[in-house]
Amino acid sequence: MKKILIVGTVAYDDIETNKGNSGKILGGAGTYIALACSHFNSKTSVVSVVGGDFDKKHLELLENKGIDTSPIEIVSEGKTFYWKGKYHKDWNKRDTLATELNVLADFNPIVPKEFKESKIVVLGNLHPIVQGAVLDQLSKTPEYIILDTMNFWMDTALLELQKIIARVDIIVINDDEAMQLSGKESLFAAAEKILKLGPKYVVIKKGEHGSMLFGDGQFFVTPAYPVKEVIDPTGAGDTFAGGFGGYLSEQDELSFENLKNAIIFGTVMASFCVESFGTSSMETLKKEEVLDRLRNFKKFTTYSL
Amino acid sequence: MKKILIVGTVAYDDIETNKGNSGKILGGAGTYIALACSHFNSKTSVVSVVGGDFDKKHLELLENKGIDTSPIEIVSEGKTFYWKGKYHKDWNKRDTLATELNVLADFNPIVPKEFKESKIVVLGNLHPIVQGAVLDQLSKTPEYIILDTMNFWMDTALLELQKIIARVDIIVINDDEAMQLSGKESLFAAAEKILKLGPKYVVIKKGEHGSMLFGDGQFFVTPAYPVKEVIDPTGAGDTFAGGFGGYLSEQDELSFENLKNAIIFGTVMASFCVESFGTSSMETLKKEEVLDRLRNFKKFTTYSL
Repeated sequence: MKKILIVGTVAYDDIETNKGNSGKILGGAGTYIALACSHFNSKTSVVSVVGGDFDKKHLELLENKGIDTSPIEIVSEGKTFYWKGKYHKDWNKRDTLATELNVLADFNPIVPKEFKESKIVVLGNLHPIVQGAVLDQLSKTPEYIILDTMNFWMDTALLELQKIIARVDIIVINDDEAMQLSGKESLFAAAEKILKLGPKYVVIKKGEHGSMLFGDGQFFVTPAYPVKEVIDPTGAGDTFAGGFGGYLSEQDELSFENLKNAIIFGTVMASFCVESFGTSSMETLKKEEVLDRLRNFKKFTTYSL
Repeated sequence: MKKILIVGTVAYDDIETNKGNSGKILGGAGTYIALACSHFNSKTSVVSVVGGDFDKKHLELLENKGIDTSPIEIVSEGKTFYWKGKYHKDWNKRDTLATELNVLADFNPIVPKEFKESKIVVLGNLHPIVQGAVLDQLSKTPEYIILDTMNFWMDTALLELQKIIARVDIIVINDDEAMQLSGKESLFAAAEKILKLGPKYVVIKKGEHGSMLFGDGQFFVTPAYPVKEVIDPTGAGDTFAGGFGGYLSEQDELSFENLKNAIIFGTVMASFCVESFGTSSMETLKKEEVLDRLRNFKKFTTYSL
């Protein structure tokens, strides 16, 4: 069984969408990635930091999914990272109403000895320096490293971001962010330029419009899984990355064919995530439901020509 | 060989995009639909109207593609329908700078006797009353009728539009227009409501994000063909409808499986259309290029899971 090392926020969110208000709930990129990864036959652990206010039941929730939370540092005198946001009717737009970094401000990630040889590393959206600090602690080159990031780091830490991009195998990024990072106006041109920064593969996420894969001189595109009612898109991208990385962890090699399938898994996992506020649908998701939706997706996207 | 009867504008356009300015060029829904249809093994004819200013070489161009232009009425004392528009950087938005209806204002479509028994009818975007007048002249129920329309008729002739929708088998419509027509906020809910208006199938076009097919209690979704550089999106929807109808005309039955393949053909045909101003790429397109791109598309969208 391969080890997957995830680094990412474990946080509290407060989310408003046109479907309602979540109140203070469990969130964070590390949480979503780990919950998605936990459906695969690998050993998942999360490096993160929380405050003394972090509810033990949330750690138990992750542990009960087989996720090793021992690398989550608890700063008892501190408070957990908190984000409050409001989505527009157009799900692609959101306003941040509050960001309290709290314990995240001084986060110095420690990779426990038993995870220094992890086969797969998923760097969730965090400061590129923190992401790099995790890689620096590995004692063996992983089979592959997956990086997620966002426009905030392009605005505030571009050089550090470029450095970390050069060290990873696969970058997973939004369409708008791909264009910002590359300065290009088409996703093809953007992917081409990002590939030159170092990664072997670029995955561009287009939200409700699906995603694209570039690398090896090849190309793949898929629609999103059709969701009848979106309740809250928070964590969809992280869940996608988790399903993507989780599927890959079960495969023997990092081939384009496997990456395509990984994208389909990520796509299907993300469709569950958006159907409820926060992590709630991901907390109760069964592998059989994932496989059911996978069969549907195949039917929805296959033609005989 | 089946007969395809198209009704739609044959027009002059003047188009500005961020890639340049077309000047006055051949355009019109009927033109684009017919050019796409002409690649299939069917007998295509266009019912339309032009003015005395319409250049004979443009009729010859269509005739040279095997398109029967005899049902295009020439009003020698009138002027051809003219549209001038400017696209935003976001291709989905455009401003109409000028619309001169000219001979279209009094268009009274006449279906010649030899086309009254056409097997396939494609009603291009026109006033719903004009579309209905074409159906009224048919002497035999066609195998199927495909309808294209736009928001303009929802704003100005909703009742007539609903009446014509009830008479067709397949409606092809944009995502925004589907939501406007149905008053629904999701494309699933929109399609469900539009199906209740009468058609057996609804095709929702999402521009660069592909298209969806609803009907028979089934669902299909496909991305768009990836185009490296869009020059002018004018006519892409009509070309899609033409490729869609053309492919169907070669099939024995109106099954969901055939409709899926028809959407793939429409998708591929539309990708050529947007790569040049106006009809120019469609004027020189070879069937072999279509089949090449079809093979590529299959590669871009197929996964082994």
